[in-house]
Amino acid sequence: MTQVIVLNGGSSSGKSGIAGCLQAVLPDPWLALGVDTLVDAMPAAMRESGDGIEFAADGEVVVGPEFRALEAAWIAGVAAMARAGARVIVDEVFLGGPDSQRRWREALDGLVVLWVGVRCEPAVAAGREVARGDRGAGMAVAQAEAVHRGVVYDLEVDTSRTEAMECARAIAQRVRFQG
Amino acid sequence: MTQVIVLNGGSSSGKSGIAGCLQAVLPDPWLALGVDTLVDAMPAAMRESGDGIEFAADGEVVVGPEFRALEAAWIAGVAAMARAGARVIVDEVFLGGPDSQRRWREALDGLVVLWVGVRCEPAVAAGREVARGDRGAGMAVAQAEAVHRGVVYDLEVDTSRTEAMECARAIAQRVRFQG
Amino acid sequence: MTQVIVLNGGSSSGKSGIAGCLQAVLPDPWLALGVDTLVDAMPAAMRESGDGIEFAADGEVVVGPEFRALEAAWIAGVAAMARAGARVIVDEVFLGGPDSQRRWREALDGLVVLWVGVRCEPAVAAGREVARGDRGAGMAVAQAEAVHRGVVYDLEVDTSRTEAMECARAIAQRVRFQG
Amino acid sequence: MTQVIVLNGGSSSGKSGIAGCLQAVLPDPWLALGVDTLVDAMPAAMRESGDGIEFAADGEVVVGPEFRALEAAWIAGVAAMARAGARVIVDEVFLGGPDSQRRWREALDGLVVLWVGVRCEPAVAAGREVARGDRGAGMAVAQAEAVHRGVVYDLEVDTSRTEAMECARAIAQRVRFQG
Repeated sequence: MTQVIVLNGGSSSGKSGIAGCLQAVLPDPWLALGVDTLVDAMPAAMRESGDGIEFAADGEVVVGPEFRALEAAWIAGVAAMARAGARVIVDEVFLGGPDSQRRWREALDGLVVLWVGVRCEPAVAAGREVARGDRGAGMAVAQAEAVHRGVVYDLEVDTSRTEAMECARAIAQRVRFQG
Repeated sequence: MTQVIVLNGGSSSGKSGIAGCLQAVLPDPWLALGVDTLVDAMPAAMRESGDGIEFAADGEVVVGPEFRALEAAWIAGVAAMARAGARVIVDEVFLGGPDSQRRWREALDGLVVLWVGVRCEPAVAAGREVARGDRGAGMAVAQAEAVHRGVVYDLEVDTSRTEAMECARAIAQRVRFQG
Repeated sequence: MTQVIVLNGGSSSGKSGIAGCLQAVLPDPWLALGVDTLVDAMPAAMRESGDGIEFAADGEVVVGPEFRALEAAWIAGVAAMARAGARVIVDEVFLGGPDSQRRWREALDGLVVLWVGVRCEPAVAAGREVARGDRGAGMAVAQAEAVHRGVVYDLEVDTSRTEAMECARAIAQRVRFQG
Repeated sequence: MTQVIVLNGGSSSGKSGIAGCLQAVLPDPWLALGVDTLVDAMPAAMRESGDGIEFAADGEVVVGPEFRALEAAWIAGVAAMARAGARVIVDEVFLGGPDSQRRWREALDGLVVLWVGVRCEPAVAAGREVARGDRGAGMAVAQAEAVHRGVVYDLEVDTSRTEAMECARAIAQRVRFQG
């Protein structure tokens, strides 16, 4: 049976909405954790530093060695949660593309994982970024396609013209349950 | 020239996203204020009381006399902001339908107002409510059609299959500017 | 009877906690509005622009002409809410000191106002800023004393060693009610 | 050297402020994770259900079997993060007192843990709960003393009259570093 669902997509692609819908439609309780959880857990000073994670004015996100070290432990811990019996939805932005996927794949070794690409046309994602009024304008476009390059999925959804709930239902159909 | 844009729609219909896009595409700075601003400004105790505003488990919202009294002063104040030169986007849920509109219409008397209905199919709004994971599930469906009954608009948009940015552009075309 | 309570103090001085306690201990419902409400209502682009409001890395806050124009209309609107019968707690940071107070005093002309200075030792406010983990570190120290220079109060409280609730009770004793 | 700092205290006792200050004063980057992170990661429906976690009107928090199951996996995962090299501050509310501590102690077996009790007089915590204007009034008083009964600490701090930063410095002095 599926133990981990990894949602990978750029900023404003709609991953967290899909995660929320998955939690509502899947029969068991699933935890939703993601890179935002990790960033919130880091020291405030790391959120504005070259050693940690920096959000540049043009939407680029730069990640330093201290971020990478904490992230590696975080990934190991999320994998351990799944091994301990929690079903986990991972909401991720593979800034490093296939390197990011490899890090997760190695940590999740032996677990049944459903890899999902969450795509959204750059212009649509950019509009949603404006609609939210967040800081960090530019991330949606910068990440929309880059995070998918070289990444391999079991399933891809596109939120450009499909609601989060509909995407979640398509993903849920691919989740395997114990008979 | 247009001084106030009133967006009326149910919970999860996408009004605040449209407001954010309007602020980005309109040439002048506009303030975005709404019933959420008012509720946040009220005493915490009023947010769970029959005299104030109660959010029932089935999605119904019940508004009491203390809420109405503060709301009347709030509306007068927002109108005064517009008269003092601020352009204001009002993000509202007309729980009372035409009665709600009348309250705003009287307060905004003499100002140039663009009345916009923000529609969203109940099932779509309900899905977005789930995607957000908010409390108060049920409000989207309860309000989707009720808030529009008997209300008169200059323009209606439907977010069911149209992005917030596209809706905002349609609204912006109806905003009149000084020549 | 008192119609408006103006709380002026630097960032992290504890104004919003006092406002929340005042709303709980005062017998009538009071609205709590402040400069944060105004900033949130502004276009996102204005929150990072020299024409709007900029938060510098050293804690300095720079306010431009577009901010001033919207702020003037905002102040007029808040005054109109009080004239329309709402009791209002204003949670402010007088970056301009006596000039800021004059702007509010003129707008509130004819209303019964209680002016309250909310002081906090710079080192204590700085510690609370760190505790919150907000961006914008440095504002607490930059503003702690500057916002009070030349400002005249009916009452001053100091949160350095006094809880918000205790400050609120001291303020509430100075609020006049109809007999 | 210390690998995990467990902060246990009731709602509004000031744990998260201490965690933020610890992250600022400790020389290495520490992750701050806690029961709030876990609750946010759960399905929205579990946050209002007897199987999950319910916040009663009187401040009581009732935890059901589905919550316990996810929590056990969560605790195992946080322990795995520490074993993988992350230093972790755990911000917890031991609703079950010594039973809660035992669950963490078993999961953290073999790690160097600093157990910290964060105390706050019930009346002070209740005032801070009002100051925040959160829902769930009553939790501060209900938990202030109950969460400490039967729990064993290396160190206790009391935020009633001591700032978060000062408490953090006292805790930091007890954190052991590699020589």
